Amino acid sequence: MGGLRFDVVARDGASLARRGVLYTPHGPIATPAFAPVGTQGAVKALAPRDLLGLGVEVVMANAYHLAMRPGADTVAALGGLHALSGWDGPLMTDSGGFQIFSLQGASRVDDDGVTFKSHVDGSMHRFTPESVVALQQTLGADLVMPLDVCTGHPAPRARAAHDMRVTLRWAERARRSHTRPDQWLYGIVQGSVYADLRAESARSTAQLGFPAYAIGGVSVGESKPEMLAAVEAAVPHLPPHAPRHLLGVGHPEDIVEGVARGIDTFDCVMPTRVARTAAALTMDGRINLRNASHVADLRPLDPACGCYACQRFSRGAIRHLFMAGEMLGPHLLTLHNVHFTLDLLRRIRAALESGTFGGFRRDFLARYAHGAYAPARIATATAG
Amino acid sequence: MGGLRFDVVARDGASLARRGVLYTPHGPIATPAFAPVGTQGAVKALAPRDLLGLGVEVVMANAYHLAMRPGADTVAALGGLHALSGWDGPLMTDSGGFQIFSLQGASRVDDDGVTFKSHVDGSMHRFTPESVVALQQTLGADLVMPLDVCTGHPAPRARAAHDMRVTLRWAERARRSHTRPDQWLYGIVQGSVYADLRAESARSTAQLGFPAYAIGGVSVGESKPEMLAAVEAAVPHLPPHAPRHLLGVGHPEDIVEGVARGIDTFDCVMPTRVARTAAALTMDGRINLRNASHVADLRPLDPACGCYACQRFSRGAIRHLFMAGEMLGPHLLTLHNVHFTLDLLRRIRAALESGTFGGFRRDFLARYAHGAYAPARIATATAG
Repeated sequence: MGGLRFDVVARDGASLARRGVLYTPHGPIATPAFAPVGTQGAVKALAPRDLLGLGVEVVMANAYHLAMRPGADTVAALGGLHALSGWDGPLMTDSGGFQIFSLQGASRVDDDGVTFKSHVDGSMHRFTPESVVALQQTLGADLVMPLDVCTGHPAPRARAAHDMRVTLRWAERARRSHTRPDQWLYGIVQGSVYADLRAESARSTAQLGFPAYAIGGVSVGESKPEMLAAVEAAVPHLPPHAPRHLLGVGHPEDIVEGVARGIDTFDCVMPTRVARTAAALTMDGRINLRNASHVADLRPLDPACGCYACQRFSRGAIRHLFMAGEMLGPHLLTLHNVHFTLDLLRRIRAALESGTFGGFRRDFLARYAHGAYAPARIATATAG
Repeated sequence: MGGLRFDVVARDGASLARRGVLYTPHGPIATPAFAPVGTQGAVKALAPRDLLGLGVEVVMANAYHLAMRPGADTVAALGGLHALSGWDGPLMTDSGGFQIFSLQGASRVDDDGVTFKSHVDGSMHRFTPESVVALQQTLGADLVMPLDVCTGHPAPRARAAHDMRVTLRWAERARRSHTRPDQWLYGIVQGSVYADLRAESARSTAQLGFPAYAIGGVSVGESKPEMLAAVEAAVPHLPPHAPRHLLGVGHPEDIVEGVARGIDTFDCVMPTRVARTAAALTMDGRINLRNASHVADLRPLDPACGCYACQRFSRGAIRHLFMAGEMLGPHLLTLHNVHFTLDLLRRIRAALESGTFGGFRRDFLARYAHGAYAPARIATATAG
């Protein structure tokens, strides 16, 4: 199937975690994997060669954003999304349904598709399941998400059920219209925080026979236990041989817990977005470089980190770059945060290979941010 | 003298052009050389490792800017300017006199120094020749410029003469207060467009016995022939063994003509500044990537260029990055423009080594921007 294949090479005995390889026409992705987000074809503040240097194996772009600017025809004229982005490794495109439904008052969904106003120039557009497949076939990513209806939070059960069933009908239409053999179209699970709806969505979507699946409509405002419960409700109903993506999730603790629940790939803007607000991810949690305490701080962001920012710059130097408005500040923190996230995935994969994922998971959650996200604390926080 | 030395290794027979090596405690600089400007300790849109990859051998920072933010004490606490910037190659610092005198209505110069308002927070400061030497000794660059009075353009002769003589007295005071043996303090020539004042300034400054000299007060609004005439008037009066820097000059044609008149090093914000406005330097002159003609332009910026931007991205892709507000756009054009400028210097050095500088100079000026800056055209333009 066009050079696309997913092999599971190791499994955890005590959870659904698995170590695999997702082969694409643009190269393999060792899973569990994290995809930095390059919404408009570029991971903000990094060049493709920086991504290679960090060990990035897959980038997530956004079909809606690229359709609005520069437009599908222009992307095609420039040789497709790989050429446009200067990244010739594996690419994913999200449909942008999430972004469109987030355009407050500027989108209207019906059973056939969605009509919306461009955030770039205010022009009116219409997306249908078929048009979004056509758009993504033009863009040419390796792994693509169909148009779905992403239910916000909180949502009454009836709304969640309706959105889930529209998503399912759209999935079927997308599946029928998709023809590129060198591209995998995902089936997306919706259902909000309702476990039975998540299970129904997973079962019905799986019956359509997609080569890969994604869980959407998470990280939209629900609690962490609700998010993990949605994953737990869906995964058992998805085919065991197909890769599973968790859309928009990428906090360290959520990655570890998502892997434990059978997720193979993740994407999230968080590591790159917070970098631009001067926040660095560390095992102690986030540190904000704008804080005056760092003005003459000679320490690197993280003494144990091997990234370029930590090897070459003190916290004080990076703080200066942010205060002075130099692009080098966001560049360095983006390098660091993507490195931190990819390093977590490397450690997860190594633990799965050596059969030590259970211990890794327990130790990580106990140590990361001083155990703030350890399961006991999460349960307490939710109960309180 | 602290690892500082300047060797001339080849000379052009028909001009004052020379090929040399300026040794500093942080490494050698092959001359003629171009220093990209990192005003606040960072060359905008590039990381130090990008500079290394481009072959940059010296960076010009600005003592005034660094004194205002993060402040000399903070730079010292963070290990000096090399540590702050993450660049451990040769560094120059300009005093920032030019920037202070450009603060319209916010600076007042007297015979002893200059009082001014910080552009960062409006606080009042005073610089004297001695305080600027102390500042630069704290920053710790290898090559440093004393405080001078930079005459604007146009300036009546009396003003130019007065500024030049204040600059000379300040140079003497700076020279006396400078003590770091691992740092070269330059003597700066002023005198505006008046050849006799330039000659007097050069002679008198040379009598103070600096290890290196700079020509300042150029590229402030005068014509190209006036700028070159100022260089011609000064150079013969400077010691032949000392390196000569031309402050703030870096247009390709000016570099070639400056070299022919005996200049060894240049610095200029132009290549990096215009990159951020989407302008790429090419042998055909500047091209602006925001121009709609590039929307589906599959060509690289320059098919003959070996830089990362030209190897990996089409003009259309770079245009998209600019239109979409991605930092990668300025990053790529900055890489390209610095590469273009450094490549010009590499070709100049090679021509000097092979004794073909005369032909190189003639051919370059005839070809660059379709000969717009060939000597005949400049003369015509000035006459017209």
